[in-house]
Amino acid sequence: MSEGKQEQIEFELYSYWRSSASWRIRAALKFKGINHKITPINILKDEQRSNEYLSKNPSGFLPTLVHNGNILIQSPALLEYLEEIKPEPALLPADALGRARVRGLAAIIYCDTHPVQNLTVLKKVGALRGKEGVTDTEFARWVIWTGFTAYEKALSVGGTVGKYSYGDTLTIADLCLFAQGYNAERFGVDLTDFPLIRKLLETLSQEDCIKSTHPSTQIDAVQ
Amino acid sequence: MSEGKQEQIEFELYSYWRSSASWRIRAALKFKGINHKITPINILKDEQRSNEYLSKNPSGFLPTLVHNGNILIQSPALLEYLEEIKPEPALLPADALGRARVRGLAAIIYCDTHPVQNLTVLKKVGALRGKEGVTDTEFARWVIWTGFTAYEKALSVGGTVGKYSYGDTLTIADLCLFAQGYNAERFGVDLTDFPLIRKLLETLSQEDCIKSTHPSTQIDAVQ
Repeated sequence: MSEGKQEQIEFELYSYWRSSASWRIRAALKFKGINHKITPINILKDEQRSNEYLSKNPSGFLPTLVHNGNILIQSPALLEYLEEIKPEPALLPADALGRARVRGLAAIIYCDTHPVQNLTVLKKVGALRGKEGVTDTEFARWVIWTGFTAYEKALSVGGTVGKYSYGDTLTIADLCLFAQGYNAERFGVDLTDFPLIRKLLETLSQEDCIKSTHPSTQIDAVQ
Repeated sequence: MSEGKQEQIEFELYSYWRSSASWRIRAALKFKGINHKITPINILKDEQRSNEYLSKNPSGFLPTLVHNGNILIQSPALLEYLEEIKPEPALLPADALGRARVRGLAAIIYCDTHPVQNLTVLKKVGALRGKEGVTDTEFARWVIWTGFTAYEKALSVGGTVGKYSYGDTLTIADLCLFAQGYNAERFGVDLTDFPLIRKLLETLSQEDCIKSTHPSTQIDAVQ
């Protein structure tokens, strides 16, 4: 828990202001009080497809985290890494069963929802439907609606929802949910059928680690 | 490491023979020597959409693992859970950096590839292209090709490939890769451009935990 030498830890996060996967990590870094530098990558200018960026992150996706020269990719792996190297304050429960439940909720977002509605996929679906270069909003809405339907049911079936998705402590599931909620709003997804999610999004919107890392606060934000 | 009381541990895995996410968990259970019962769910008969199954797994996806009455979902969460409750033999490296690298590789498959080409998504893309009820093979091939392109580069960029995806020890990344390779074959994806992956798939095909849990060996397999 010592904060004494934290300024010596060197973290660089490659991020895009509107990338919800980047936001998860920005929020986790803030929550854990880990000093870091943010390097913006502009996906509208295809900077994530530059040879330089691809040499770090071969998927051409955001975020990428560089820690003391070690290049790490994929936000679920980054969340686990941050939890391991700085366990407190925790973003996962202390018991294996609780961790499995939280990871299960998070995976509804970071496996089944977000990757299916990322920009590359939406453009591909648009192209397959004869609209080259257009992101397919109808498909995106369906993906997010389907993911939120599962998340909402998992909250009630699991009976684990409290102030947060799992009890009364913030976890990685909440960070994934909130960032996905931002995408839901962008794509105009109707959240009427998701009362538990709506309540969580309202609560989470007040969290400092989320507010202070909001896309609109980012150096590369376009207003 | 004691095996003495293992027969008392009660695991039930809801699985479908051709589900690559189920296969990951079947292989992990086998690798770790965890006795378990398999309950088949026939997704061609939409059994995963029954109220009974949805009450366990609200996503309507496979697999679901029940451990001593505790219902757990999402294969990445299950892999972590099995690693925590039975750390040996290990499916993750001992150091945080190594674990992050392995999870990063695995997530290229379990986030960016497999969920984007699951049956539900392929049917949705088919329907959006005017072919209701048809799985979109063209989209599936693109998704797997894109995912394998990233995985292949990550293996060489990371420089971590050995006998397996990360050094000379089998990890969760290999289990995810191999099961995805099975899907690649089913969808007719050309693997010519992926020499490292092809070599890994050849090696992995000889692993007992993979061979003995192959879809064709399953009780619900249709030959």
